[in-house]
Amino acid sequence: MRTLHSSVAALLLAAVTACPVHASESGTVQTSQDSLQPVTNAGEKKLQFDWPMLEIGTGEYAEGPTGVTVFRFGRKVMGAVDVRGGGPGTVNTDFLRLGYNYPDLDTVVFSGGSWYGLEATTAAATALKDDGVRGGHWDNVALSVGAIIYDFGDRRLNEIYPDKRLAQAAFRAAQPGVFPLGAQGAGRSARSGQFFGCNAHSGQGGAFRQVGPVKIAAFTVVNAFGVVTDRNGNVVACNPGEGWPKTLRPTELLAGMPNSRKPGWQPPKEAGRNTTVSLVVVNQTLEPALLQRIAVQVHTSMARGLQPFATEYDGDVLYAVSTGELDDKQEGALTSVDLGVIASEVMWDAILSSVPEQPRAMQPNKRFKVAAADVTKYQGDYKFSEFVSVRISEQGGKLVAQATGARDAFAIKKQAAVELQPVAQGDFTVPGRYPLNVRFADGKLILNPGHWQQIGVKSAQ
Amino acid sequence: MRTLHSSVAALLLAAVTACPVHASESGTVQTSQDSLQPVTNAGEKKLQFDWPMLEIGTGEYAEGPTGVTVFRFGRKVMGAVDVRGGGPGTVNTDFLRLGYNYPDLDTVVFSGGSWYGLEATTAAATALKDDGVRGGHWDNVALSVGAIIYDFGDRRLNEIYPDKRLAQAAFRAAQPGVFPLGAQGAGRSARSGQFFGCNAHSGQGGAFRQVGPVKIAAFTVVNAFGVVTDRNGNVVACNPGEGWPKTLRPTELLAGMPNSRKPGWQPPKEAGRNTTVSLVVVNQTLEPALLQRIAVQVHTSMARGLQPFATEYDGDVLYAVSTGELDDKQEGALTSVDLGVIASEVMWDAILSSVPEQPRAMQPNKRFKVAAADVTKYQGDYKFSEFVSVRISEQGGKLVAQATGARDAFAIKKQAAVELQPVAQGDFTVPGRYPLNVRFADGKLILNPGHWQQIGVKSAQ
Amino acid sequence: MRTLHSSVAALLLAAVTACPVHASESGTVQTSQDSLQPVTNAGEKKLQFDWPMLEIGTGEYAEGPTGVTVFRFGRKVMGAVDVRGGGPGTVNTDFLRLGYNYPDLDTVVFSGGSWYGLEATTAAATALKDDGVRGGHWDNVALSVGAIIYDFGDRRLNEIYPDKRLAQAAFRAAQPGVFPLGAQGAGRSARSGQFFGCNAHSGQGGAFRQVGPVKIAAFTVVNAFGVVTDRNGNVVACNPGEGWPKTLRPTELLAGMPNSRKPGWQPPKEAGRNTTVSLVVVNQTLEPALLQRIAVQVHTSMARGLQPFATEYDGDVLYAVSTGELDDKQEGALTSVDLGVIASEVMWDAILSSVPEQPRAMQPNKRFKVAAADVTKYQGDYKFSEFVSVRISEQGGKLVAQATGARDAFAIKKQAAVELQPVAQGDFTVPGRYPLNVRFADGKLILNPGHWQQIGVKSAQ
Amino acid sequence: MRTLHSSVAALLLAAVTACPVHASESGTVQTSQDSLQPVTNAGEKKLQFDWPMLEIGTGEYAEGPTGVTVFRFGRKVMGAVDVRGGGPGTVNTDFLRLGYNYPDLDTVVFSGGSWYGLEATTAAATALKDDGVRGGHWDNVALSVGAIIYDFGDRRLNEIYPDKRLAQAAFRAAQPGVFPLGAQGAGRSARSGQFFGCNAHSGQGGAFRQVGPVKIAAFTVVNAFGVVTDRNGNVVACNPGEGWPKTLRPTELLAGMPNSRKPGWQPPKEAGRNTTVSLVVVNQTLEPALLQRIAVQVHTSMARGLQPFATEYDGDVLYAVSTGELDDKQEGALTSVDLGVIASEVMWDAILSSVPEQPRAMQPNKRFKVAAADVTKYQGDYKFSEFVSVRISEQGGKLVAQATGARDAFAIKKQAAVELQPVAQGDFTVPGRYPLNVRFADGKLILNPGHWQQIGVKSAQ
Repeated sequence: MRTLHSSVAALLLAAVTACPVHASESGTVQTSQDSLQPVTNAGEKKLQFDWPMLEIGTGEYAEGPTGVTVFRFGRKVMGAVDVRGGGPGTVNTDFLRLGYNYPDLDTVVFSGGSWYGLEATTAAATALKDDGVRGGHWDNVALSVGAIIYDFGDRRLNEIYPDKRLAQAAFRAAQPGVFPLGAQGAGRSARSGQFFGCNAHSGQGGAFRQVGPVKIAAFTVVNAFGVVTDRNGNVVACNPGEGWPKTLRPTELLAGMPNSRKPGWQPPKEAGRNTTVSLVVVNQTLEPALLQRIAVQVHTSMARGLQPFATEYDGDVLYAVSTGELDDKQEGALTSVDLGVIASEVMWDAILSSVPEQPRAMQPNKRFKVAAADVTKYQGDYKFSEFVSVRISEQGGKLVAQATGARDAFAIKKQAAVELQPVAQGDFTVPGRYPLNVRFADGKLILNPGHWQQIGVKSAQ
Repeated sequence: MRTLHSSVAALLLAAVTACPVHASESGTVQTSQDSLQPVTNAGEKKLQFDWPMLEIGTGEYAEGPTGVTVFRFGRKVMGAVDVRGGGPGTVNTDFLRLGYNYPDLDTVVFSGGSWYGLEATTAAATALKDDGVRGGHWDNVALSVGAIIYDFGDRRLNEIYPDKRLAQAAFRAAQPGVFPLGAQGAGRSARSGQFFGCNAHSGQGGAFRQVGPVKIAAFTVVNAFGVVTDRNGNVVACNPGEGWPKTLRPTELLAGMPNSRKPGWQPPKEAGRNTTVSLVVVNQTLEPALLQRIAVQVHTSMARGLQPFATEYDGDVLYAVSTGELDDKQEGALTSVDLGVIASEVMWDAILSSVPEQPRAMQPNKRFKVAAADVTKYQGDYKFSEFVSVRISEQGGKLVAQATGARDAFAIKKQAAVELQPVAQGDFTVPGRYPLNVRFADGKLILNPGHWQQIGVKSAQ
Repeated sequence: MRTLHSSVAALLLAAVTACPVHASESGTVQTSQDSLQPVTNAGEKKLQFDWPMLEIGTGEYAEGPTGVTVFRFGRKVMGAVDVRGGGPGTVNTDFLRLGYNYPDLDTVVFSGGSWYGLEATTAAATALKDDGVRGGHWDNVALSVGAIIYDFGDRRLNEIYPDKRLAQAAFRAAQPGVFPLGAQGAGRSARSGQFFGCNAHSGQGGAFRQVGPVKIAAFTVVNAFGVVTDRNGNVVACNPGEGWPKTLRPTELLAGMPNSRKPGWQPPKEAGRNTTVSLVVVNQTLEPALLQRIAVQVHTSMARGLQPFATEYDGDVLYAVSTGELDDKQEGALTSVDLGVIASEVMWDAILSSVPEQPRAMQPNKRFKVAAADVTKYQGDYKFSEFVSVRISEQGGKLVAQATGARDAFAIKKQAAVELQPVAQGDFTVPGRYPLNVRFADGKLILNPGHWQQIGVKSAQ
Repeated sequence: MRTLHSSVAALLLAAVTACPVHASESGTVQTSQDSLQPVTNAGEKKLQFDWPMLEIGTGEYAEGPTGVTVFRFGRKVMGAVDVRGGGPGTVNTDFLRLGYNYPDLDTVVFSGGSWYGLEATTAAATALKDDGVRGGHWDNVALSVGAIIYDFGDRRLNEIYPDKRLAQAAFRAAQPGVFPLGAQGAGRSARSGQFFGCNAHSGQGGAFRQVGPVKIAAFTVVNAFGVVTDRNGNVVACNPGEGWPKTLRPTELLAGMPNSRKPGWQPPKEAGRNTTVSLVVVNQTLEPALLQRIAVQVHTSMARGLQPFATEYDGDVLYAVSTGELDDKQEGALTSVDLGVIASEVMWDAILSSVPEQPRAMQPNKRFKVAAADVTKYQGDYKFSEFVSVRISEQGGKLVAQATGARDAFAIKKQAAVELQPVAQGDFTVPGRYPLNVRFADGKLILNPGHWQQIGVKSAQ
């Protein structure tokens, strides 16, 4: 399990006042999609690889946060699909299933936003047309396939989704050989492990391997109901339940089901939707039936790195693509079985690379005294979206917070006020299994300042 | 077969100068999607029926022409899908196939624009969210499914497609009980019968029947490679080959294949893509397997009214929806078999109602003399789109036309100039199996003036 | 509609005493499958065609009657399958769906006996092994696919099914170029039109066409819930309801549903299962996706010749096979679309050829007096199977019949005795929509003497 | 990894002369299926559980060895299927896929014999009819589904397959609460790990768990191309390559692919077919979509215990059954997700329980001298089947063996004679990665005496 100490997280905390906070610019809460600014190809940690035929672009709306990841190919390619999840959102899979032996596919698009995010997939096709790359001639129509993850619910305090504008920005920012890892692109607000109540931040992962002339790349946006498991059989990211050991093994947790789940704990209804969407790309030609086999074999193999996998609450989809640059009769080409085996391992690498540094919980500092002026200043109503607002008030000399809109704000519930425990100047925390970092800055209330921050704007009084 | 004489067509011809010609407003050819104006719920001939739960809206860009048809339901409904064609474009069919026994579907969207037109389907989902009807809670996410037809190629001289803006306009214009028949909405530039070279204008059809408490509606956008066939076994619309009888029977044509096809004639490569997309709606509850059965049975039955059907060059898709208003245990509810049989007949009615009045070919008038001044005035280069231009010039006292862009303009080919035979003041014709009506008006060249007109704007000299 | 007058039927009636009646040999009712004698390649009317690669054998148990039809190929061939019905019985379709681009299929087997009849499909595979044609090496394992029809219920008075022994006899009797038409092989007890209460005898049909070098054969066992429809739109075989016109058009019957069905009449529960199983064979190579397309297109087209089709009560399955003798690059090879269109017409021919001559109803002869000695002689209990027995007795000088076992015997019901109306020496009839011919001969009671006869053996007193 | 020392194996070796060797009875090699004797419910190690509704019977032909495992239910049950492998053999899966919400399934049958073994599945249906349990009434027809494994190739020296007779014997021997573990029933000649050249004996496994009122059973016949992996990530059974560590981890082997495979070693072509077929049974009602979900989720999870899984060379199929004894609304019923998770763990237990004790390799004893008389006596030609014979001769005072038929006999190849190294009186060995135990007894040559022994009969000279 990743520890909560992380220099990157620390940096993010430090840097928060420098973050571009679009909401604050106008002093109003962002609710319209139209005013959001696409951020493309963001992220510090990136997979780099040599494959000019494969270009990748990401787009994000920081206010969600949510995003999209676009894969585009230097020419039309062959595609196959395997749907295994209980709640998929897809575009154009029926065409792929026909199994024609000619290349037709242009782009694969993953995005957040649940079914709304499918707009990103169709947007890639129309971008290809609007940009004059593809047209209306029957053998030149752009084919874009895609799938989405559910990143609403209790992941964030708004329901911004990746839209046409964001997807086309990502599409146009696509570049070869670079793939942002972690909570970026379509995986911007992904989460994993809710089956065990882990509520771990997740993201998108990628890996690449070259075996002789054969290139294999695997990408996945891990928003799984299950936990990410490494090759030693350990959980990679989880907010552990009370008394859970540091080294959690899903096989033990699972073997002990239903009792191994935190006693009395049930997945919240909000956990209702998850999904892992994935892509395997090879440069070797494969007849349609064998490309389909790669899709099936690799997708099935992911049950090792995500446990459980393919549940009713997942919508897992995997696309397999052959760019056809290497003829399968050529020296060094692999059998479909070996290709499937190796691609499965590359995919496991990709799963592991999807896990971002988990944010560090701030620690209460009992000796820190909040100045009375600050107590006064912080009080007020902060609006995060049309359905989430938080009221900060003073109770017995302590600052407390209570959600006043239609929904809770993470650990700040509607039901009762919760104390904000002081950490440092402007910083507070609400400890618990899912600790909440709280910051006051410039008349805004920032929950979980850093990569996944949610910003509430103080209402005029 | 429909005759070419039609009062409606005559009216259209007469009314052409009054047509809203967006291209002419600015004096430039429309190429950007962004400047197009949605026209909603257009059409003279409409199916009317009583079913408040089912709302329909259409949107069209006259400059294509192309369009979209949106079906939205008063609540979430059950859906099933059957894909039979060789080149489908679909959204979210994978979810429907899981066969959950609860309603989840919000809209069904059909559109032109080939795979680009799928943007219309995702746009209906995001409209539901943007309008606040649906949101991000896991059981309230909007589910939109859809399918498209190919209406590019030699159907029209541009590649405008139905986009998000058009689809959302259609979505917001939806109203219960009214469905425009013929070349409207998604069927705006549909065609049928190209398998036999018919090249008949086609459109969208709809029919409704109530049997006791059971409501059944069928809708279809007929863009079939095959011909539309009535219950007497006759072809309903076709530009006949030379020497073909007035009353064509597809069973005879088909039985005589390959010889019964016009000798030496092969479907042009441009015929490459067609598609018929359909929807059956019933108000009776049906368990998922039986709703699926309705989809299969009705879709299969369409082979009677469209011959041939479900070819490699079609992308046929049918959705079946149960609104669940009438419990299947209730008095008057039908068995799934009877429901399938009756719905199949309603669908045949819908197919037949899709056929628009075919345009009347103008007849050359050998006694009409074109004034010399007009000859001069008409000459010049007319641009229809970035890949279609036509040059009008004078040869031996006659006006001739030749395509000068990347593609032909119907009967005006790139290969050689063709004579424009005078009809009346400003009107000309190019006779043939596919006669072309030509009109000069206000510095524009209007091909096939009327419902399917294409407008070329004269270049500055 | 076929008339009831038929010289073949007459011959059958005349020849009945010469029929091999196995039941009578031992004086006991046949209930064990083991004592039944396979009859191979029976039937007068046969399709003949020139195609050495395609061998066909049929096997029948006359006591059912029921049977099996085996198609075997001179080498491994490519296969595809399309399942459209609501109650299929199939073997090895999953393998075909993988769409590998190499030939693997050895036999296609159709049979009666509902799911029990699938034993015939697996028996063809083991026959190939037992005979040393195929073995256990991984690329030489026999692949047999198949499908069945439901020919129990009220079709006959026993539940004999085609078993391994019968199927292997048919397999070993296979010969090229000959296919028995009508109520033979798998179609031995087929029926059609029960949706309208037609209860017409049906059978298996076949047709062949050669277009240049392309060979196309279609075979079908028509046991449809719907009626067979010819190219003029007329019902081909039906026991009409009272007052129904001689020339019935299904489109009218269907369009008028539910009222066009005989008032008050509903398909009996016994009608619960039907099925049409079909096979298309071409000699041209086709990539797997296109062979699949042929399967889909042809299967869909059958909705023209069988109305309704693909209902919940049908289990329709179609296999498509390419023997790969003619390369699709060769001169004269057809496009997949043309191939599909022509094969669809060949299939319609096959459907029409499946309809056997309907039996002639004997007419009551009021002047014929049954001798008192005969009345005495005929009386007694006749057993047809473990669940069907008939008691013949005398009431007021007339012979009456009543079913005494667990089930009815056609028009002879359990509920009440019915009068046997004299026709001639030993012959009687029970008139009605479904007239029953009755014959006493050699201590046996023969119902519907002739091709579909059922024989009851008199119990010892 | 299991060690090669095993008291059970020792017992088997000792007991070999007491083994029922049918071949020896007649003095001829068994080649006809008809003379084989079914052995039912064999095996020492058995899973026992309390569930009267679920009866299990196995049948084996020792001469193969090969076998069949029949699951029958106390009433009709709901079924679902998930096919994931690249070479499946199945019966009646199409019906299951229709997803009707009523119980129709009677039996699930697994067997050896590749596609020939499907005869076992259809035999269970006809046994139900022949025994009068099911009949021909449309709602009482027996539905049997099944799947097979490939157990020919280099697994054994003959191609005997499980046939109708064997399957019906197993069917009639079915009893509740007992399931033989290891190389029994359908898993009699199963093998695993050939992807890495392991060539380990495999078998059938089963496990049962009760959670409150919910009963969950999992069964699997493991004939995987991949290796069996335990929850610590170790290979459970493998004949290791030279220099391989005792504790093999598939994740390491797989991650190192293709180099981690024994250098230069490729899976032999004979490895071409494998397959794991599985069954999950629950007593809780589940709507069809959720029963299907269980099938998908559990099947996917098996990728943890079998690595690699679902390759082109596997034909993996999983059936899921709900007996419907516990209403899902009842107290203690599980959510489909929890049910899927727990069933996945039960299935992993089942996989692990499938691995039989691996046979002990006899060790060469250099001090043991074979008597000259014995050398003479052992010489001769031994026939194992129509395609495997072995010649024993003397070369330089040593006994050598060479295959003389069409195929090799394990380590005794056709290419060259191999020395038989003396072990003890009558016992010899051929060491190697796949050591061969050899015994002479009563004029017979017994290869691998014990559970998997192959018996060659000496030809008359």
